[in-house]
Amino acid sequence: MDIIISNRVRLARNLKKYSFPSKLSASAANEMIEDVKKSILETPTIMANQFEFMNMEKKEPLDKLVMMEKHLISPEFVKKTTVPTGLLLKQDETVSIMINEEDHLRIQAIRQGEDIHKTWELTSRIDDLLEETLEYAFHEKYGYLTACPTNLGTGLRASYMIHVPALEVTGQLKVILQAIGKFGITIRGMYGEGTEAQGSLFQISNQITLGQSEQEIMENLNTVTQHIVEQERRLREVMLQQNRLAFEDRVFRSYGILTHARQLTSKEAMRLLSDIKVGFELEILKAQQMPVNIYDLMVCTQPANLQRKIGKTIQGEERDVERARFLRKYLPKLMTTNE
Amino acid sequence: MDIIISNRVRLARNLKKYSFPSKLSASAANEMIEDVKKSILETPTIMANQFEFMNMEKKEPLDKLVMMEKHLISPEFVKKTTVPTGLLLKQDETVSIMINEEDHLRIQAIRQGEDIHKTWELTSRIDDLLEETLEYAFHEKYGYLTACPTNLGTGLRASYMIHVPALEVTGQLKVILQAIGKFGITIRGMYGEGTEAQGSLFQISNQITLGQSEQEIMENLNTVTQHIVEQERRLREVMLQQNRLAFEDRVFRSYGILTHARQLTSKEAMRLLSDIKVGFELEILKAQQMPVNIYDLMVCTQPANLQRKIGKTIQGEERDVERARFLRKYLPKLMTTNE
Repeated sequence: MDIIISNRVRLARNLKKYSFPSKLSASAANEMIEDVKKSILETPTIMANQFEFMNMEKKEPLDKLVMMEKHLISPEFVKKTTVPTGLLLKQDETVSIMINEEDHLRIQAIRQGEDIHKTWELTSRIDDLLEETLEYAFHEKYGYLTACPTNLGTGLRASYMIHVPALEVTGQLKVILQAIGKFGITIRGMYGEGTEAQGSLFQISNQITLGQSEQEIMENLNTVTQHIVEQERRLREVMLQQNRLAFEDRVFRSYGILTHARQLTSKEAMRLLSDIKVGFELEILKAQQMPVNIYDLMVCTQPANLQRKIGKTIQGEERDVERARFLRKYLPKLMTTNE
Repeated sequence: MDIIISNRVRLARNLKKYSFPSKLSASAANEMIEDVKKSILETPTIMANQFEFMNMEKKEPLDKLVMMEKHLISPEFVKKTTVPTGLLLKQDETVSIMINEEDHLRIQAIRQGEDIHKTWELTSRIDDLLEETLEYAFHEKYGYLTACPTNLGTGLRASYMIHVPALEVTGQLKVILQAIGKFGITIRGMYGEGTEAQGSLFQISNQITLGQSEQEIMENLNTVTQHIVEQERRLREVMLQQNRLAFEDRVFRSYGILTHARQLTSKEAMRLLSDIKVGFELEILKAQQMPVNIYDLMVCTQPANLQRKIGKTIQGEERDVERARFLRKYLPKLMTTNE
């Protein structure tokens, strides 16, 4: 079962030489961005060729939203339109370095599946590379200094994106949320802090960055996440055993609506695709072709990615019509009710 | 547009020789039934061969319900299980004579479409034939005497079954209902008095039987019905013009659910089939084969007819599963979304 969609490691870093972003002048910010850019692109490593630099001030709003929906940049970064910002993006889109976000640097790696250790190694390598030419703001006692105290110490946020419809629908996720607070772990919406959960997708991440080593933070997160995954799995089995008919009916109806509706909001599409995802994982729906990646389809139907996909700038109802058209076309190619 | 599904004429008659059914002994009832039976089956007319007599006491409850759902007998007749009752049914199921219902005789003819005059002629012919051998309870001043005063006079109830989803969904049917009372016309559920409307199907009929001739009653009913049909037609056009997208979306979603759901209650199936019916009439859905008769499909999915169709006695959830299976199988053969 594909309960863990992806895992992500993000490091907050600041350069000793500059004021924190909130107090940084535009010219100093540009200078800082240039320093970071050079430290990656002008090094004699393989990495230099794998990264592309983007001047984010020159990016269209739609391009930024496309990247945000793919979790390559943060919602906060999209909103920063009045100060210089830059992005170093690895070609395979697994690593991105936001420059002049809340901190000078936000180094993040995001990868499918649950192997967060490999993701950590990836960010760690970038971190080391940057440190060869840049001096970080670091305190003997507190560790890495950050704009917001919640990131102080390791500057690390590790997270998993999880798909937990059974826990959500039964209300058990709320119970879990209260229980995991004491482990310094929290669960938030699909795009992190203050964002809504859609399609039963949630981000589970560490809250504590201070007083624990990076390894301890990730081990702690892994333990809690594995527990949640097991509960989701168990709950799906219970629901299926108790009322297989109602479960199947829901999955098939969602498939019927997705393949016939003439307008679909992003929120409804996410909810229905969430049913389809579970339906496939529980072998209620059959694959037409492999691999079946419903999460990709979810990202494709997000407002900005949908517009990118069809190559038109469209709003509101027109977008809902195109979303429905897109899903009618692609979903039956991906899976079938096999009747 | 197929707003008028069918029309029906029903005559209430009693025999002078016998007490009204509520005061009739079982032996007298049997004698009365025998008299009526003879007056149809033992006459030297073509009709004698077209009718079949059924001893309703010996009928299985399911058989009675099947006939009730097809409007061949009344819900009240189904409930009469402790006294002798009989039925004379024409082979093509257009004419039925209930014997020992609320009155001694309920002669009814039901035909598709809107030509109520022909239906009237049919009942009238049977009425004449019966009167050749039987003496009706008739009063110079009041006309035909009936068990309930609401049928006194002509003993006539003329009705149309109409499909008015637009009037129902906009709440205008309630407004109409208040206005037509003064014309002696009423609108009731699918199976008449005290029954619920399903799938936006309603019966519109005369309330007054006294002080108007049969022709006046039917002309009056026709005038009101034509007015309602025009309003429904106009309203559909307005709704389509104002928001064609929402209209189409609803029709296609209903099609998607009907062709994918794993359980469907009778009520939900009727609601969805009502959408399909309008969708076909407005050329949103295309026929796979002609003729397309959604009303027949509605009758087929009624509890008793469904059991008859699949040849099994099933209740509750199991029946909802079979109803969904039946509709998944037949609906796509009848019509398509044409994509």
